[in-house]
Amino acid sequence: MKKIYLDNAATTKVDENVLNAMEKIFSDKYGNASSIHLAGLEAREELENSREIIARSINASPEEIIFTSGGTESNNLALKGIVGKKKHIITTRIEHDCILNTCKWLEKQGCKITYLDVDNEGFVDLKDVENAIAKETAIVSIIHGNNEIGTLQNIEEIGKICRKHGTLFHTDACQSYTKTKIDVQKQNIDLMSLNAHKIHGPKGVGVLYVRKGIKLEPLLHGGGQEQGIRSGTENVPGIVGFAEAVKIADKKYIEYMTKLRERLIDGLLKIPNTKLNGPKNRLCNNINVSFGNIEGEAIVGLLSDEGVYCSTGSACKSRSLEPSHVLLAIGLTPLAANSSIRLSLSRHSTIEEIDYAIEKIKKVVDKLRKLSPFK
Amino acid sequence: MKKIYLDNAATTKVDENVLNAMEKIFSDKYGNASSIHLAGLEAREELENSREIIARSINASPEEIIFTSGGTESNNLALKGIVGKKKHIITTRIEHDCILNTCKWLEKQGCKITYLDVDNEGFVDLKDVENAIAKETAIVSIIHGNNEIGTLQNIEEIGKICRKHGTLFHTDACQSYTKTKIDVQKQNIDLMSLNAHKIHGPKGVGVLYVRKGIKLEPLLHGGGQEQGIRSGTENVPGIVGFAEAVKIADKKYIEYMTKLRERLIDGLLKIPNTKLNGPKNRLCNNINVSFGNIEGEAIVGLLSDEGVYCSTGSACKSRSLEPSHVLLAIGLTPLAANSSIRLSLSRHSTIEEIDYAIEKIKKVVDKLRKLSPFK
Repeated sequence: MKKIYLDNAATTKVDENVLNAMEKIFSDKYGNASSIHLAGLEAREELENSREIIARSINASPEEIIFTSGGTESNNLALKGIVGKKKHIITTRIEHDCILNTCKWLEKQGCKITYLDVDNEGFVDLKDVENAIAKETAIVSIIHGNNEIGTLQNIEEIGKICRKHGTLFHTDACQSYTKTKIDVQKQNIDLMSLNAHKIHGPKGVGVLYVRKGIKLEPLLHGGGQEQGIRSGTENVPGIVGFAEAVKIADKKYIEYMTKLRERLIDGLLKIPNTKLNGPKNRLCNNINVSFGNIEGEAIVGLLSDEGVYCSTGSACKSRSLEPSHVLLAIGLTPLAANSSIRLSLSRHSTIEEIDYAIEKIKKVVDKLRKLSPFK
Repeated sequence: MKKIYLDNAATTKVDENVLNAMEKIFSDKYGNASSIHLAGLEAREELENSREIIARSINASPEEIIFTSGGTESNNLALKGIVGKKKHIITTRIEHDCILNTCKWLEKQGCKITYLDVDNEGFVDLKDVENAIAKETAIVSIIHGNNEIGTLQNIEEIGKICRKHGTLFHTDACQSYTKTKIDVQKQNIDLMSLNAHKIHGPKGVGVLYVRKGIKLEPLLHGGGQEQGIRSGTENVPGIVGFAEAVKIADKKYIEYMTKLRERLIDGLLKIPNTKLNGPKNRLCNNINVSFGNIEGEAIVGLLSDEGVYCSTGSACKSRSLEPSHVLLAIGLTPLAANSSIRLSLSRHSTIEEIDYAIEKIKKVVDKLRKLSPFK
């Protein structure tokens, strides 16, 4: 059976070059990067080269790159590590669960959280950001490319506002990294979360970019690795795989995915009563559509039987029946939100796959609409 | 040049079978284990099979296995996750840094920590454990196989004492796992930390065993994976690799390593003024020796030039000039502690390697002693 993977916002296939790069470390340069013998020094060298590649890709310095176990840990560390005397955090209603649930936990610890609304394309109003900043604001945390509807926030302007008011700015760039230009200097970013498995790297590896001079309280205490900010034996093979994934990401793939995305959107919007959710200026690989009175979950299930893999939204939420908080935030009714699916492309996606997916989605939607009690 | 890796307590080479098992997941079953389409379900199946293999190996139930990013995270989670109303922790002076530094941090948060002394073989006195337990004791955390001197504590009896007093018992079994029998039922263990990269599995994967019914506060908030205790996209390839490493570990390797260890100890003790540190009943792959008036760091460096890789103690501490807290705790002087090296074997070690290492250690020690100002 065909296997058409259109759930690259959930996770991606590890690239063959990434696999080759990791294999060398797994079986040859397997030393502990903190050991002082040659096997350790070899591993350390691989670690530091990888750090430099990732730093360069976002216009940062190597010492500003802290390796973590993934996007969730990076986001947790950014917020929990920064709140101290200042206990106010500004974020949005369309963040990933790892920001929202970290904020909920911080509220219980006595922090005050401002959740900014977004417009019906998922954009934060810059004036709202500015108005929310107070003397006790520790950090503003706003997702760069939204994981469900693909909205790309104007982080450069948000960062500028934060800087003007002397407030730190963190962005979760797990979805946007390598899919649009990121420059921590130009975009005024103080902290940024990245991960590997969304860009054809391995699972279990992430980065927190921390601008020089910013002090963070660690979440994990121990051997003092990663400048004492993140203890634990360095995951050198995973980190080398991450850097390789960054190296082979190329601007041309952004254009390629954008073209495929437009073809897929055009095809889907020919299905009657179909609505595209999210903004015009969206992630190059993201599509989110509602089909009215049928269940997104059922669409995903039947498409899976046809070999087309997509999702109703965030993978972590797949097993929950709650409507997406992101779709509600942009004004969808719970019913419309629950009739939505997310399709997310990769550079491995092809025109043939897109056309096949359109055909199957049409078939599945027709079938479900015929069965639907809502007419 | 020869490459004789005798630093397996720092980290191990990934086994070829482990690599093969992971490759299939990296490039084929790469779905997000929380996705509901077939690619997700396939990944979920691999995840749950792996959980079962690891659970079975310690006589636990699969739902008692929480996957983490490694030993450091497991140890942090066990202690930080358990303290609540009860704020007293009992531990020892010979724990790994990730327990000791977590305890230091918890002290700053208002916890009271009792650090138990050990005898000159590194053993905790069971009476001291019992005497230290108080009404406000949240948990007793004692390392199973010590990472520096190999002391295997009598965890079954420690667990029994804890149970008698209604106190939870956690053990860091990262070094002992697969190297001696572990049975969480028989040994009265409530929480236990394990990791993959010490047993020829990948870096970046660990387990916290949590006995059914024990409530833990998560360290990482997010999508609610791992029963809400540890959010973050499941590292399925790493977890599958971990389970494969457990599957291929065999009792016969324990006997094999024990024989090699004895051969190495016998060889080293023929060098004059050499003292074996640690107990008679030690980890099957651990040797720790002092050479008197020469620097362990210099021995490790010169041995590395000869292709023999070992360490002065914990890898995380390699770059520090402080004498080992473990060796001080068993009564060594700072000078003697600083003249020590740790050699740690694996099932890939051979008699030829052991004999070569003995010859080179003898040569290096002779050379350094001739240069030493202390005669």
